[in-house]
Amino acid sequence: MKMADYTPMWHSLGLDVEAHDGLLRVLGDAYKDIYLSQENRPERMDYFDFVISEIHGLRIQELMEARRDGRRVFGSFCLYVPEELILAADGISVGLCAGADVGTEAAEKVLPRNTCALIKSFFGFKLSALCPYIEACDLVVGETTCDGKTKAYELFNDYKSTFVIEVPHMRTSAGRQLWRSEIERLAAKIEHVSGREITADGLRKGVWIVNEKRRALHRLNALRRSNPVPISGRDALLINQIQFYDDPVRFASKVNALCDELDERVQSGVGVAPADALRVLVSGCPMAAPNWKLPFIIEKNGAVIVGEESCVGERGTRHLVDDDGATVAEILDRVAERYLRTDCAVFTPNPERLDHIAEMVRSYGAVGVVHYALQFCAPYTIEAASVERALGHERIPLLKLETDYSAQDVPQLETRVQAFLEILKR
Amino acid sequence: MKMADYTPMWHSLGLDVEAHDGLLRVLGDAYKDIYLSQENRPERMDYFDFVISEIHGLRIQELMEARRDGRRVFGSFCLYVPEELILAADGISVGLCAGADVGTEAAEKVLPRNTCALIKSFFGFKLSALCPYIEACDLVVGETTCDGKTKAYELFNDYKSTFVIEVPHMRTSAGRQLWRSEIERLAAKIEHVSGREITADGLRKGVWIVNEKRRALHRLNALRRSNPVPISGRDALLINQIQFYDDPVRFASKVNALCDELDERVQSGVGVAPADALRVLVSGCPMAAPNWKLPFIIEKNGAVIVGEESCVGERGTRHLVDDDGATVAEILDRVAERYLRTDCAVFTPNPERLDHIAEMVRSYGAVGVVHYALQFCAPYTIEAASVERALGHERIPLLKLETDYSAQDVPQLETRVQAFLEILKR
Repeated sequence: MKMADYTPMWHSLGLDVEAHDGLLRVLGDAYKDIYLSQENRPERMDYFDFVISEIHGLRIQELMEARRDGRRVFGSFCLYVPEELILAADGISVGLCAGADVGTEAAEKVLPRNTCALIKSFFGFKLSALCPYIEACDLVVGETTCDGKTKAYELFNDYKSTFVIEVPHMRTSAGRQLWRSEIERLAAKIEHVSGREITADGLRKGVWIVNEKRRALHRLNALRRSNPVPISGRDALLINQIQFYDDPVRFASKVNALCDELDERVQSGVGVAPADALRVLVSGCPMAAPNWKLPFIIEKNGAVIVGEESCVGERGTRHLVDDDGATVAEILDRVAERYLRTDCAVFTPNPERLDHIAEMVRSYGAVGVVHYALQFCAPYTIEAASVERALGHERIPLLKLETDYSAQDVPQLETRVQAFLEILKR
Repeated sequence: MKMADYTPMWHSLGLDVEAHDGLLRVLGDAYKDIYLSQENRPERMDYFDFVISEIHGLRIQELMEARRDGRRVFGSFCLYVPEELILAADGISVGLCAGADVGTEAAEKVLPRNTCALIKSFFGFKLSALCPYIEACDLVVGETTCDGKTKAYELFNDYKSTFVIEVPHMRTSAGRQLWRSEIERLAAKIEHVSGREITADGLRKGVWIVNEKRRALHRLNALRRSNPVPISGRDALLINQIQFYDDPVRFASKVNALCDELDERVQSGVGVAPADALRVLVSGCPMAAPNWKLPFIIEKNGAVIVGEESCVGERGTRHLVDDDGATVAEILDRVAERYLRTDCAVFTPNPERLDHIAEMVRSYGAVGVVHYALQFCAPYTIEAASVERALGHERIPLLKLETDYSAQDVPQLETRVQAFLEILKR
């Protein structure tokens, strides 16, 4: 499906083009197996297939053209970095490569082996010069969510200019004030890097664009409540992943176009899985593209994923920014407030997340939850005990998994998933 | 050396007395090997030997008596919890058990296996009812330093009432404000639990007591700059560990009495190690009592530890609280300011710590640094790369170690330490 020869662009970005070609081949093969092999997919997934096929090509070309036009590109690894501020300065927000077992050996020369796969991955991508997003962005914005990222950004800054904002870990009034002032500090940095002032009009536009994107994803999620479910969990995850790369306005319109098709499917009772398929909720750590390992295992064993309680999923999109702010300060207040509601496990205590998981189980008609944690991710692996207890009280079956990006544990994961699905069938 | 039968007290605290007897036997044997076997120890170490022999006995009895007199006991695992505030309310601050491989199996039923030994240890001590300090305290004060502790406190709260304060991870002005308001929130909690108002006079007294304790430790540290060094690193570590358990006024006077003896030793050129012994600095994670594994390995192989860049060491004691505050608010300002200077690896960036390590190497005349990190401790294991680079610039040899509380890796650690000492000899 590749449209053009991007080799000169990749060279100019300093990529290791040969290794990069190899990476694209491997990912293309995986995509064929995991995505294109699905039966009865919605037709309008073709747009998202196209985006993936061009994710290191056409989209990077767009970013480079935007930069030539004077726009700035801001990369991040976390949804605590508000896209609204970036859009307000006419910038472009992109997620950076962090979802594949790439450059791990190089990363482990800098980072401890006992670091989660996501962090090793972003470091590995940079050290092995395989992520055009990292190379194409003007600034990386980091955050003090978990210890691993907080400390890794310090080292990452040696390779790529990284600006870190502090995310508090408690939702006290002092924590809210800290966060509000960090939002302000980030806004000033974005203004500085982009040479553009962030105005109330710009922010309003940013809020509107990102809210529209979220509303489109809400619509998609609502359709997954139907039985039979009109779209696979894999595809829904893919769309959630693509939101971090694609142009937000185009993305929202394409999600809405897909939802029109899914509407028809729901009305005519067409699903990607039979009506008696086991409906599973996945909860836990974010799955950055192309991390499709666990969803593929779950769905190829006959279950269907109806929701993702994840940063790359409903945790990341459910709250809108209130659009009633008039001044810059008022709008920043609302942006700050909205982001602090994101119930990441780095917060303590974090009862909102436990409530949300149970609520999602009910609203999506799930019969069980697979808790997915990256190995060495303290926040999610420890909070798993609280999830277990909360779901236990509601008699909702739970499978707790810890994994990484390698393929080594796939057979073992598959055995555990199969056993869990057997329990759910009873 | 045991003076009394504490069994009834231990029973009343709900300890597993039989297992506790076994623990004390094991620790007593280890103490004999590691401490009492040392040659030419300062005589006034006898006080500290006595404290250790009574650490679960007489000291606990003192705490229980204080509680009967209406005083309250506050337990913590981190030196971001200001003892000054506790003393201001006539309370007692104690460190909680976290330094031994105890109850690990029980802890791993609640916490992920990939959790650092310190966290598993405090959980294990509680779950197996082996720490009289945890049982004797009225409130545990936790802090959001690292992810592991932050999230573990949530679960720990099910077993023991735990109040958590937020430690910021950046020293921005917003971070300082957050911390200042957390100090205020903690003060209010201490007032509530102890039923006593925290006054300026009380705070002044608290500041004075803790500063005196720190000054005594500064004096001890200064004496270790001499060659031959008058006291072993093991003994200095022990004293640093005991500061978290003993009455602070008594402790300071005993440290000063020991320093009088060390003064004489220095004047007459008496050391615990020959003048040509390799002088080593240990830097990294805190070593909570009875974690003496690595210092013992280093010193029994002929080197002498001249300083600890550690929370249980100079990182924890080097800064005093400015005593020029008049009002409660002013004194709390100074307390907050002082604690935020503690250069724990959870901060980003954390150049102060790198400077401090190099400065300690120079001022203690060390010829190399052993960087000690607990396995799975992201802040210290990742910051080790920055330490390596900073020391590399100054051509200071470094040995980076990751370990836990088990004895399994002792032979391997010993081999690595021996090889490092060989390099230092060249």
